[in-house]
Amino acid sequence: MSRDYAVDPLRVGVLGAKGKMGAEVCNAVSRADDLSLVAGIDQGDRLEALTDAGAEVVVDFTHPDVVMGNLEFLVNCGIHAVVGTTGFTAERLATLRSQLDVSPGLGVLIAPNFAIGAVLTMKFSAIAAKYYESVEIIELHHPRKADAPSGTAMRTAQVIAAARAEAGLPASPDATSQEVDGARGALVDDVRVHAIRLSGLIAHEEVLFGADGETLTIRHDSMDRKSFMPGVLLAVRNVPSLPGLTVGLDSLLGL
Amino acid sequence: MSRDYAVDPLRVGVLGAKGKMGAEVCNAVSRADDLSLVAGIDQGDRLEALTDAGAEVVVDFTHPDVVMGNLEFLVNCGIHAVVGTTGFTAERLATLRSQLDVSPGLGVLIAPNFAIGAVLTMKFSAIAAKYYESVEIIELHHPRKADAPSGTAMRTAQVIAAARAEAGLPASPDATSQEVDGARGALVDDVRVHAIRLSGLIAHEEVLFGADGETLTIRHDSMDRKSFMPGVLLAVRNVPSLPGLTVGLDSLLGL
Amino acid sequence: MSRDYAVDPLRVGVLGAKGKMGAEVCNAVSRADDLSLVAGIDQGDRLEALTDAGAEVVVDFTHPDVVMGNLEFLVNCGIHAVVGTTGFTAERLATLRSQLDVSPGLGVLIAPNFAIGAVLTMKFSAIAAKYYESVEIIELHHPRKADAPSGTAMRTAQVIAAARAEAGLPASPDATSQEVDGARGALVDDVRVHAIRLSGLIAHEEVLFGADGETLTIRHDSMDRKSFMPGVLLAVRNVPSLPGLTVGLDSLLGL
Amino acid sequence: MSRDYAVDPLRVGVLGAKGKMGAEVCNAVSRADDLSLVAGIDQGDRLEALTDAGAEVVVDFTHPDVVMGNLEFLVNCGIHAVVGTTGFTAERLATLRSQLDVSPGLGVLIAPNFAIGAVLTMKFSAIAAKYYESVEIIELHHPRKADAPSGTAMRTAQVIAAARAEAGLPASPDATSQEVDGARGALVDDVRVHAIRLSGLIAHEEVLFGADGETLTIRHDSMDRKSFMPGVLLAVRNVPSLPGLTVGLDSLLGL
Repeated sequence: MSRDYAVDPLRVGVLGAKGKMGAEVCNAVSRADDLSLVAGIDQGDRLEALTDAGAEVVVDFTHPDVVMGNLEFLVNCGIHAVVGTTGFTAERLATLRSQLDVSPGLGVLIAPNFAIGAVLTMKFSAIAAKYYESVEIIELHHPRKADAPSGTAMRTAQVIAAARAEAGLPASPDATSQEVDGARGALVDDVRVHAIRLSGLIAHEEVLFGADGETLTIRHDSMDRKSFMPGVLLAVRNVPSLPGLTVGLDSLLGL
Repeated sequence: MSRDYAVDPLRVGVLGAKGKMGAEVCNAVSRADDLSLVAGIDQGDRLEALTDAGAEVVVDFTHPDVVMGNLEFLVNCGIHAVVGTTGFTAERLATLRSQLDVSPGLGVLIAPNFAIGAVLTMKFSAIAAKYYESVEIIELHHPRKADAPSGTAMRTAQVIAAARAEAGLPASPDATSQEVDGARGALVDDVRVHAIRLSGLIAHEEVLFGADGETLTIRHDSMDRKSFMPGVLLAVRNVPSLPGLTVGLDSLLGL
Repeated sequence: MSRDYAVDPLRVGVLGAKGKMGAEVCNAVSRADDLSLVAGIDQGDRLEALTDAGAEVVVDFTHPDVVMGNLEFLVNCGIHAVVGTTGFTAERLATLRSQLDVSPGLGVLIAPNFAIGAVLTMKFSAIAAKYYESVEIIELHHPRKADAPSGTAMRTAQVIAAARAEAGLPASPDATSQEVDGARGALVDDVRVHAIRLSGLIAHEEVLFGADGETLTIRHDSMDRKSFMPGVLLAVRNVPSLPGLTVGLDSLLGL
Repeated sequence: MSRDYAVDPLRVGVLGAKGKMGAEVCNAVSRADDLSLVAGIDQGDRLEALTDAGAEVVVDFTHPDVVMGNLEFLVNCGIHAVVGTTGFTAERLATLRSQLDVSPGLGVLIAPNFAIGAVLTMKFSAIAAKYYESVEIIELHHPRKADAPSGTAMRTAQVIAAARAEAGLPASPDATSQEVDGARGALVDDVRVHAIRLSGLIAHEEVLFGADGETLTIRHDSMDRKSFMPGVLLAVRNVPSLPGLTVGLDSLLGL
């Protein structure tokens, strides 16, 4: 299929199109002038609908149980992929990389969080980490959430811990000797993480850094699924020119 | 001793005068036109210095180990007392009440926290508690603090729990099924309390209430010991006309 | 029409049923077991549809231009009213009171804000105002809002100013001598009010009180129109037993 | 004077040693093992005391009226300088650069704010600015401050405005049509800045970024002058190897 990039919109398919995120992606793609929604499929539909429709990029917001099969299909068919599904272990990433090694020019981008604010929070936390002796994370979500802390908070803690280790910082000072069990939060790679669950909240993360006489706070508030769309569309537009496996939006944001 | 209340300043003594809080009280009393600092004593000094100096009210910021002895002395000598020392159990309060029963006209006021903002936070939390299905407490302190959660946060949780029980509210909704140990904080009377310890912080408490579509947050920031002085002076000025045992500043603030 | 209160649901009509708030009220009434939505009308519909349907209480979320006519009709027909429409001047309230004087037993409740958190924020601010030398208000909204500051922030400022005046407090201290025009916000009854307009925000208000060494912050976050429904339903259920004019939800909340 | 860098501490002088910041610098230098406080002078003292004492680096926290004279003396004597005094216009910086051009190897570092958190807030704001359609700044200070907004907030606004211009962003959306004068803050290079003045506060800055469905907040809280010392000492240690004029700590922090 020949394609005039300056004229024809990019042909996009969505996997998990009936899920909350997938439906939002379908809307966002439809509204973008430079993108064309050619297929939206979900559980029970045939993957071949994507190739039949001539999808050039497919966005996958499905489930950890099926995402590896989806990606194998897409890679085999020469379709680029943008993935928001969770559950990517080091092993899964290695498998994907092997598959892509034999498919030159094909790109897969996996992001744990497509909200630009979440990406910036992580990036800024990594930079600030080395200048402060203290750091703690508070994440706040609606009370229907199953996991505590959130995956984003866990990753933020890991990124901070790595930056502190590299800077040779010891654990944050803490003289607590009497603790009601759980008061001091969860220890994730030596960083304390506290999870609040409250009606009325949506998805929020606050990283607190402290030194003698000052504190620095970075807070991200997600009020709506819409906040993920700019990141998803950015990935969709760029993945055809990003061969191999890309994890996270950082490189696309020039961070 | 005859005294012209319109003219003579109230004669005030301080127990624990060399401690951080006691020293601050000495300064605050000295600066008040209507109060006169007549004695400031500490460990090793004789309690009789207070009677020798003609103290009418004594402020005690000492230690749980000695405060009951101090109060027995003061009550026996007919001196009113304002107490900021911690560690008052139900038993200790009962003992004090018995002593005051036989000393008509004498007043003792004990307050767990003299910052007006802390008193208001507690009061407002008790009122708001019955209107929200969700509530959690975050307290934030410098990393040299030994106990977690803070005593103030513990009491706030208890006050909230009592108000919720009276309103017939069940526990806050929480679907957490996967938790890294401690992430969801400490359970104090069925209220989740999270304790942050961070360099640069001083003493802060935040109470979060949530319902469908809205949250209400009450936050108290103590930046300096000075913040306790208006409450201490208010108590000193009023305790002579408050016979018996008074716990907390609420009644003085007209709450 | 005879009615068994223990059995029959209260018959509720909605004026402005196609508006955002009106539609939400229709949903909330429909979902409540003890209420029955009997009529939802909007611009162009006949008011008589409300009497035809036997409405006992009507909720009005319409427009300042038509609300006075609506209320005259309802009072004349002996229908209780709950009003969320804005624009009630002292003169309009006086007119309404005269109409209700000759309709014994009939109740009209007008509330500037049905979110319980907004009512509590106002109430707590009035209490705290007299204990702090400094106070300022920050309100934060989405950038499509036409007025700055918000009506709620204006009323909060007025309530605080009244409480400060009663306590004999002077204006908050402020040594500003060099100001870029507008930096110190709007002066509303001697209280500084700052209006933030930002994409991603919904409707938020923060009241900051300050004294030597401490601050107290009361913050209300409205994330969704749903947050007004508990207040609306509370008013609907109670207005039949509140003869005359009631302004605000305070009395219903026992504040 | 020959000097064994591996063994001898760096010889540091302080100008403005009796001021609040200068005194804090004297303390910080005294406590550092690798630095030696050799002279602390103030108004009325002879500048020659610095050369007499063999100062290698001098820290200047004086006044805009005298700082240019101080620096001319230091440059002429071959002494490196770290400057926290304010009031550096483009003209003054040009003058300094000319003087340093003829003094190869000599370094002068001027920083508007030595708190690492303030430097990071500025840096992060510059990065985030290009990804968000909305931005506003709130700065909060004690009520004894003369200027509003603060110099730091003004500079933050300028940095953000420059980044937005570079990214081709228009002004933040704002539908305000009815405004109580001042409600929407001061316009600094097209960025809205709000200045809060409140007893109990010290020095705080909050930068709010917003896009559809999400907000990102960066907040810096300065509780104590001590928070400037790590930045001052970092500058002192590095300025001997930074020939010419350096403005800001960014390069020292590797930002």
